[in-house]
Amino acid sequence: MTEQKNKQILLVSRPQGMPSENNFKLVEGPLSIPQEGEMLVRILYVSVDPYMRGRMNDAKSYVPPYPLNEVVNSGVVGQVVESRTSEFQTGDIVSGYLGWQTYAVAKPRQVKKVDVSLAPMTTALGVLGMPGLTAYFGLLDIGRPSQGETLVVSGAAGAVGMIVGQIGKIMGCRVVGIAGSDRKKEYLINELGFDAVINYKTAANLKNDLKEACPGGVDIYFDNVGSGISDAVLSLLNFQARIPLCGQIALYNLEKPDIGPRIQTQLLINSALMKGFIVGNYADRFHEAMPQLAQWIKDGRLKYKESIVEGFENIPKAFLGLFTGENLGKQLVKVSDL
Amino acid sequence: MTEQKNKQILLVSRPQGMPSENNFKLVEGPLSIPQEGEMLVRILYVSVDPYMRGRMNDAKSYVPPYPLNEVVNSGVVGQVVESRTSEFQTGDIVSGYLGWQTYAVAKPRQVKKVDVSLAPMTTALGVLGMPGLTAYFGLLDIGRPSQGETLVVSGAAGAVGMIVGQIGKIMGCRVVGIAGSDRKKEYLINELGFDAVINYKTAANLKNDLKEACPGGVDIYFDNVGSGISDAVLSLLNFQARIPLCGQIALYNLEKPDIGPRIQTQLLINSALMKGFIVGNYADRFHEAMPQLAQWIKDGRLKYKESIVEGFENIPKAFLGLFTGENLGKQLVKVSDL
Repeated sequence: MTEQKNKQILLVSRPQGMPSENNFKLVEGPLSIPQEGEMLVRILYVSVDPYMRGRMNDAKSYVPPYPLNEVVNSGVVGQVVESRTSEFQTGDIVSGYLGWQTYAVAKPRQVKKVDVSLAPMTTALGVLGMPGLTAYFGLLDIGRPSQGETLVVSGAAGAVGMIVGQIGKIMGCRVVGIAGSDRKKEYLINELGFDAVINYKTAANLKNDLKEACPGGVDIYFDNVGSGISDAVLSLLNFQARIPLCGQIALYNLEKPDIGPRIQTQLLINSALMKGFIVGNYADRFHEAMPQLAQWIKDGRLKYKESIVEGFENIPKAFLGLFTGENLGKQLVKVSDL
Repeated sequence: MTEQKNKQILLVSRPQGMPSENNFKLVEGPLSIPQEGEMLVRILYVSVDPYMRGRMNDAKSYVPPYPLNEVVNSGVVGQVVESRTSEFQTGDIVSGYLGWQTYAVAKPRQVKKVDVSLAPMTTALGVLGMPGLTAYFGLLDIGRPSQGETLVVSGAAGAVGMIVGQIGKIMGCRVVGIAGSDRKKEYLINELGFDAVINYKTAANLKNDLKEACPGGVDIYFDNVGSGISDAVLSLLNFQARIPLCGQIALYNLEKPDIGPRIQTQLLINSALMKGFIVGNYADRFHEAMPQLAQWIKDGRLKYKESIVEGFENIPKAFLGLFTGENLGKQLVKVSDL
């Protein structure tokens, strides 16, 4: 294997506002050689996720910024092609944060084995990975849904939103999605059983449409999006409403501060709770969630959807597509066949 | 008694922005006569509280609006002067929501006996009443202070803020107050043991001053005030910070929506929790709080401060003073001697 080249995509400049392909550079170089205790992984799929935009800024966030002129870090699934550790065998399918490259040298603690008998390997980056765990803990631990309550989820057709809505249905909620196209709307209603979905791009009056879709008000608002979409939802909160704050994708590419009506009064008059979180806060409870998510998939109660772009060089384009709403479900890039 | 007149203060128009004395009218009329099962209460002290401003609007809030041309409802302490119920004796000191008037007819369920052997009767409207319980549950249940954490409290010299800060000290926190005069600042530091207090009216740069006063960041922000003061505090949140939202007094008299930077990003990047509440949410736990508050008072660990205006006709003025920052501690109006 070692005569092969490694391709990498580097972050070469920090985006101002909406990123462009010019912020990234594809480079080719020699393959690194695994040392004793390491393994060489051929990457099969890479993940592109909205949170990565935050790491491209040189600013405090819940994760440190990406360094310039280094490989963009991200979740991947790959296959061990050379192992110098007894913990992994050549041929093992693994997942970990190995970045936008075609090969990576990894230590055992950087990856974990993917059980492909449980579900296809790509689910390790979606419903059985970070997005699925994010949906699970954000909704169940912060949202605390009860039978008969109304759950609104923004970014409903994204990797996380789609799972949130379905777990909401399993918990007996009325589930209302907010998404950005009629194709997404139809998918969520017809395939995933959402009770109503509002296309915010074509809504004449988002607040009125939401009011109609939530005749009993809003008990839980799982927020992936922020901005004016959230203002509309927050005006419909019920007493003791819960708002898991998962993302604010509408803001990630803003060049000016996001100004709007301050929300504290809405929270105050409704005794409502809002809580930001990242999935890492729940790392010691992942073992609870994984079997439950897998069981729901097996029972046909939880469906997952992936948008897969082919070709290593298309990673930046797939990443940019997250901000123009092109993906339905989890966006992945297929880098290599197994 | 019944040959005496009753004085009442009515809400006769809804304030637009800052209320004025013209929104109220003092009227005199005959005393009502208690029926079988009722009692006549001579009111000794009435309470004026910031939350009452919200009830003067004709808008949804956590309590229904005050009806026009009726007595302004509020907490009071009074003495039973005629009892036609076996549950209360003539001479009993009672507290309840009997409103801005000199006499009231009350049913037993509207009032409770004040144990004047425990503390002076006025504390039933302050540290052993609604403000004390608000501070207790908001800080302990939502704020969840730990030894060594930093607690910031806005409206620190008000009835609630003052108690919040002292309970914070009892819990081992570094306590930083925000208040509106140097007199308040000195009182909080010298008499109540706050670690630092910032006079937001004279601060050249509130955020810088806060940063200096909170070198370890902010773990808990107990918010009575809102607006730009909160923006400054929220910029200093630590990971997993908690923000009990108790009031937004800076906003109560605004005539336009309160616009500012949306706060969700601050909550998201810090996995922070913000929760609105009203003391009534904890009604089934008041019995836990009362003996603890009384014990802290007895031990000298919890001090209370009252600002008492004399004279029934001065009630509206005392109420208006809440919004210009005139009160230090709990604002009361003494209506009658015992």
